[in-house]
Amino acid sequence: MPESMTQLEIARSGETTSEMESIAQREGIALKTIRAEVAAGRMIIPANKNHLAHGLKPIGIGIAVTCKVNANIGNSETVGDKESELEKLHTAIQYGADTVMDLSTGNRIDEIRTALIAASPVPIGTVPIYQMVEELDGQIEEMQPQQFLDIVERQARQGVDYMTIHCAIRLELLPKALDRLIGIVSRGGSLIAKWMMAHRRENPLYTHFDDLCEIMRQYDVSWSLGDGLRPGCLADACDAAQYGELDVMGELTRRGRARGTQVMVEGPGHVPMHKIEENIRRQQAVCDGAPFYLLGPVVTDFAPGYDHITSGIGAAMAGMYGAAMLCYVTPKEHLGLPKPEDVKQGMIAYKIAAHAADIARERPGARDRDDAISKARLLFDWNRQFELALDPETARAYHDETLPEELFKSQKYCSMCGPKYCAMRISQDIRELCKTSELVELKPKL
Amino acid sequence: MPESMTQLEIARSGETTSEMESIAQREGIALKTIRAEVAAGRMIIPANKNHLAHGLKPIGIGIAVTCKVNANIGNSETVGDKESELEKLHTAIQYGADTVMDLSTGNRIDEIRTALIAASPVPIGTVPIYQMVEELDGQIEEMQPQQFLDIVERQARQGVDYMTIHCAIRLELLPKALDRLIGIVSRGGSLIAKWMMAHRRENPLYTHFDDLCEIMRQYDVSWSLGDGLRPGCLADACDAAQYGELDVMGELTRRGRARGTQVMVEGPGHVPMHKIEENIRRQQAVCDGAPFYLLGPVVTDFAPGYDHITSGIGAAMAGMYGAAMLCYVTPKEHLGLPKPEDVKQGMIAYKIAAHAADIARERPGARDRDDAISKARLLFDWNRQFELALDPETARAYHDETLPEELFKSQKYCSMCGPKYCAMRISQDIRELCKTSELVELKPKL
Repeated sequence: MPESMTQLEIARSGETTSEMESIAQREGIALKTIRAEVAAGRMIIPANKNHLAHGLKPIGIGIAVTCKVNANIGNSETVGDKESELEKLHTAIQYGADTVMDLSTGNRIDEIRTALIAASPVPIGTVPIYQMVEELDGQIEEMQPQQFLDIVERQARQGVDYMTIHCAIRLELLPKALDRLIGIVSRGGSLIAKWMMAHRRENPLYTHFDDLCEIMRQYDVSWSLGDGLRPGCLADACDAAQYGELDVMGELTRRGRARGTQVMVEGPGHVPMHKIEENIRRQQAVCDGAPFYLLGPVVTDFAPGYDHITSGIGAAMAGMYGAAMLCYVTPKEHLGLPKPEDVKQGMIAYKIAAHAADIARERPGARDRDDAISKARLLFDWNRQFELALDPETARAYHDETLPEELFKSQKYCSMCGPKYCAMRISQDIRELCKTSELVELKPKL
Repeated sequence: MPESMTQLEIARSGETTSEMESIAQREGIALKTIRAEVAAGRMIIPANKNHLAHGLKPIGIGIAVTCKVNANIGNSETVGDKESELEKLHTAIQYGADTVMDLSTGNRIDEIRTALIAASPVPIGTVPIYQMVEELDGQIEEMQPQQFLDIVERQARQGVDYMTIHCAIRLELLPKALDRLIGIVSRGGSLIAKWMMAHRRENPLYTHFDDLCEIMRQYDVSWSLGDGLRPGCLADACDAAQYGELDVMGELTRRGRARGTQVMVEGPGHVPMHKIEENIRRQQAVCDGAPFYLLGPVVTDFAPGYDHITSGIGAAMAGMYGAAMLCYVTPKEHLGLPKPEDVKQGMIAYKIAAHAADIARERPGARDRDDAISKARLLFDWNRQFELALDPETARAYHDETLPEELFKSQKYCSMCGPKYCAMRISQDIRELCKTSELVELKPKL
């Protein structure tokens, strides 16, 4: 294959890549299915050629494969440096992050990013406008479109695998967004909106979409079309601003694909439970099945400090309805920059959401680990339960809090019910009874 | 009204009670609606006459009113005493428990129960068979039906507001349950199953259902028909044992109502997300709209230590589809007896689930607190956000972790994005721009 072809272009030509092969193997899905999904744009393989050359293990993101989880890390102007971000990267990967976004907005962005890419076997995503505004010292309205293209080119060369770019927030949508309860909550979206208001001109990332495609295609950077107008509270969900931007995303999905680039679409945000299915169905229809990458959604605004749970509920449902990737939310959301422990808690909540979604989609083998842990429960094999647990350390610690001695690891009960009340032990006694005694009195009644 | 009439009988007679009035006020619903719902058996008011006389604040449980949350407390043979259980009661109520079940199975059950009832303004539920087996020193097969009736009568006299009794696990269902991956996981269910196996006779709680109704009616104790055959893992969900027992519950719902008692029905347990709606619809149809009280359900078995989250997801969805009450699950589920901090974490997860469900059901006013907190976010009124938060202490602590000084409480950013990247601040700047400058260039395009 010519060096310059993207995964999408190769798939369309009827050929496969070693990345598709490794995804087929990892997902237990036929290679031809992977190829067909990539060719149709329903799956992306975010794999920058420069990251692939340096240890990236490719993954597929799309409705045909397991639901993926992204962890956001990155410093802010007030907190975080290279070491803290590398620690968060390792924590995120340890707990199963499929991709990691570096959202750094503070100092030494290039240094942090190159260190993260070098250290990361998973795809790295960025939001280039953060570096842009950093270089403009906060004066986004001074941005020239060429400056933005240069930043995207620089990050692409560094090996970024996918980029969130807010191309779809068009000028005509702004009044709709400003009528909302809390307006624009996407950082990138608000910066572009400010630029548009200052110049009274169309979004330059929209007008330069084709130029951006050229850069993306060259390195095979995947699009993550940013939803600059995602609702930031339940009151603003599913409004004209959000769905108006989604329509533009549909147009850009088709244009991006036509230019050989891989396209994923971002989604909300804050959505009440009964509107989540509508959001997924609409995106699937409007964006011709492009992988949908959701932030949450948070299903109630009243629990800051627990938004990994409020959004884990929404994320699990989104995954069930067909979201391809879930962007985690940590307990610090709306309150402060997450630390490694917050990254862990966010990851745990989202691995639960993605796994529950895979089960609900009845993916082959999705329930195997659940069934294995259930069998270990039945056998009172506590050590096996801990091994199979999403977070073995915590499961063991909770059990040992009341029954620490090793002998309890083989006991047929835990401190929840104690020995006399363990239903599973009694249930086993009954099975034994059944084996040894006559069941005729039971059976005729069936 | 005659002293001996239940809320159901009074409602059916066309009259109302002061309990119905206070529920109508608390829920913001017309008194006649409350009366009609109680009369139809779609709402119960678990209010033992002896608890009412001692400080109970009555609540309604049913599809017409807000989704309720129950917290389970109680000691086990290995852990817990009266003081620890009173502490858990206070923690549960502090975080919003609508009812509390005392599931004590250890020592001094009567003493703990009477202390809890005296201290509790919320309805108290129990599972009388736990005390039964305690008194039989674990030998449930020695139980005579009259002994069980006596325990129920004793607990009713003490003021218990609702009781979980496993009347619906019939003999003919046992072989179906024993074919499962992990059999019977309900403690009460397994005890009754053992009794039936030992005697080769029908469930005595089924055969003595009418006698039990007599006691329940006398004190107006509400039924919580226990689901002894609820699935204990995803692999066993929605099987013939579970649904067979549900059919018996439908029969008992009608018989209980006919005898003037208020009936609620318990549900699973462990159910994958895509089967939750089916569970709710089926219960509604089979049990003629009797309030459905679910334990979770847990939507994946692979995360012990985080089952407040795995089940919070299922509970929120169950609430959306029409569950009347959600029984919380703490992080210690499957691992050990919860402590007060676990009670808090379980309550938080379930208040989130119930509230998200109320929003999804579009109950009038359900979103008010969410909108108020969103407005406080827009105004950067950090103290107001904390005040409105489900757990103000934690929200404040998370914020203050990186920006502790009081001056940051009025700053237009937090450490997540820092001052330059706060989308809401930028969004406000744009609104200001709109106020002062001409928007004609934007508006014609709309």
